[in-house]
Amino acid sequence: MKVQPETPERLRALIGQDVDAIETPALVVDLDAANRNLQRMVEFAAKHRLRLRPHAKMHKSAEFGRLQLQAGAVGLCVQTVGEAEAMAAGGINDLFITNEVVSVAKLRRVASLAHQLKVRGGQLAIAVDSAEGVERLAQAMQLTNAVIDVFVEVDIGQGRCGVAPGEAALQLARLIARRSASLRFAGLQAYQGGAQHLRGVAERRAAIGIAAERLDATRRLLVAGDMAPPVISGAGTGTFAHEAASGLWTEIQPGSFLFMDADYLRNERDPAQPQFEPALFVKSQVISVGAGHAVCDAGHKSHAIDSGLPMVLAPPGQTPLEFANGGDEHGVLRPLNGGGTLPALGETVWLIPGHCDPTVNLHDHLIVVRGGVAAGRVEAVVPVDARGAW
Amino acid sequence: MKVQPETPERLRALIGQDVDAIETPALVVDLDAANRNLQRMVEFAAKHRLRLRPHAKMHKSAEFGRLQLQAGAVGLCVQTVGEAEAMAAGGINDLFITNEVVSVAKLRRVASLAHQLKVRGGQLAIAVDSAEGVERLAQAMQLTNAVIDVFVEVDIGQGRCGVAPGEAALQLARLIARRSASLRFAGLQAYQGGAQHLRGVAERRAAIGIAAERLDATRRLLVAGDMAPPVISGAGTGTFAHEAASGLWTEIQPGSFLFMDADYLRNERDPAQPQFEPALFVKSQVISVGAGHAVCDAGHKSHAIDSGLPMVLAPPGQTPLEFANGGDEHGVLRPLNGGGTLPALGETVWLIPGHCDPTVNLHDHLIVVRGGVAAGRVEAVVPVDARGAW
Repeated sequence: MKVQPETPERLRALIGQDVDAIETPALVVDLDAANRNLQRMVEFAAKHRLRLRPHAKMHKSAEFGRLQLQAGAVGLCVQTVGEAEAMAAGGINDLFITNEVVSVAKLRRVASLAHQLKVRGGQLAIAVDSAEGVERLAQAMQLTNAVIDVFVEVDIGQGRCGVAPGEAALQLARLIARRSASLRFAGLQAYQGGAQHLRGVAERRAAIGIAAERLDATRRLLVAGDMAPPVISGAGTGTFAHEAASGLWTEIQPGSFLFMDADYLRNERDPAQPQFEPALFVKSQVISVGAGHAVCDAGHKSHAIDSGLPMVLAPPGQTPLEFANGGDEHGVLRPLNGGGTLPALGETVWLIPGHCDPTVNLHDHLIVVRGGVAAGRVEAVVPVDARGAW
Repeated sequence: MKVQPETPERLRALIGQDVDAIETPALVVDLDAANRNLQRMVEFAAKHRLRLRPHAKMHKSAEFGRLQLQAGAVGLCVQTVGEAEAMAAGGINDLFITNEVVSVAKLRRVASLAHQLKVRGGQLAIAVDSAEGVERLAQAMQLTNAVIDVFVEVDIGQGRCGVAPGEAALQLARLIARRSASLRFAGLQAYQGGAQHLRGVAERRAAIGIAAERLDATRRLLVAGDMAPPVISGAGTGTFAHEAASGLWTEIQPGSFLFMDADYLRNERDPAQPQFEPALFVKSQVISVGAGHAVCDAGHKSHAIDSGLPMVLAPPGQTPLEFANGGDEHGVLRPLNGGGTLPALGETVWLIPGHCDPTVNLHDHLIVVRGGVAAGRVEAVVPVDARGAW
């Protein structure tokens, strides 16, 4: 068995076509809504004097990254080396890998990218949470004459990566500062991912309150140890107003706000935040109609279900529908309240995916429309540059 | 915004390398185990005088499709037009789209593919479940002088696509036979997807027993109406021994048996079936170690969780670990029974994904190894030709 060339991807739509012509299942972005979401976030960050560094793990697209930088973002966050490479290939020069990398081969790619961005006048940053991670990074950086910004990740409550708050963070910051001139201690990575999808505003506020106490204790220790963190970066779409209110964070990293998803829409709305609109949709088509249900062509290959099933858009005057997954290629639609009319064979059904990040990762292209999903036109077909990037 | 060229995919491994060298997260196939699984299924089908038409929606790879045909499969099933095109591009000539297609643009592709396969001495088949579906298909087939095999899908219990058992199937078969010389009534598509993952053998047998009654009533009606179905196709990895025992089905369509997954391994083993081995693994690396947990680099982008979380392979003498998803790029590992040793930073952790089909769909390549995942070598890097194909 040998490597085969890739089958070329067929495009689901062409620029200028009506929304009606988009072949299904397709991932469609309402650009007007996304632009409004972006403008609201930029205004929020400016008002609170926060640097905005949106997380590109959500859209995985250099095109949307450039849009964010043009609107005022200072750079982008990414979660993998491959995402950083894809964004750099698309012209983004200021990137922060908000994750730990310990593979020697990947760290060589990190060093190479740090060099490339330096030549272009940009900057690469990365997170670490162990002395061995610092050592491996320092060894890889010997291959270049670039300097990489290194953030100490602190576990402020998510229970995933990160050193414990306090002394461990100070020790790691000192190690970074003394280990190599190629490493620059850049600050703290402090993200409470577990708080983003708590349903109630009060719960989210409380979770970030606890996180902020842990972060502040750590920050004070670093300041006292003459290792004051130049930047404290973190926060997500569910909680960023609370991080802002704490006065501790200097940079925010929200991703989902641009497109939104059904799971964030299920959160209790926080009046301290701007209101974001759904801008990401799966266009599907009814391919079968049974006695009490219809079947559309959107299943596990069209949208991720790790944060719940998609919502079905209900046009005015039509029966609200409930979505049940029917496998990789099928969604089963039933009237939400029992009665009503099912959509007919061939009809379009629009879904709001449960979770934007892994949904985008299932698609090669974002079909970008203007004028809304009901009656708009295709403005662009944007590649998901970092789909599957590792 | 304009279309951007794709970023080239980096390969995670090269042919001939040790398994140790495979970059993570990677989807790895144990070819020895997959070949044994295939041989067992071929023997089962031969013994029961059943045509074996494995479902390529699972592996999405023409290379594995060719392997199945060489071993004795009569052709492949696919679930989308794009999967059929990808398999045809890879040299497979006998394909059955076991799903309804109603989009006019897609039906043009169906007609074009039917023509292409005819020229090559092959044959295309498709399922329908509505008079309108037959009409749309007939109109598209006017564009060619090929004949397409048309199966009437009967809903024998899954509650997804398909006409109701009985009279509706006869009416649709008659419509196919009289509507156009380009359509040939080929038989019944009868798949009980809902029975595959019932945990107990008795439950699965009972579900297929009910399905078989519905199918038999339908078959008798067709025979009495002079529309005897030439082929009755269906069955999956969870139940195919029961379909075989019924004597009704003439062709079986299992997919997962080749690679297997954690969810099928959680089924009570059926002594009427050959035993299949896990052959599909995610190789991951520990990137962070906390107080009571370790974090590996495999999350929602590495494996699908619609049928449950991955199992962690426990090498002899090592602590059995439990996997919790930590987002798109992270898995959180804890000792299964509380105590024991966590894997160290940089160590390899092997996972058995919950569900093979949507997991394969997340990857561009299958890294195929010989000699097992613990100490083998890379035999091939096989593209997932039909990843995302629609």
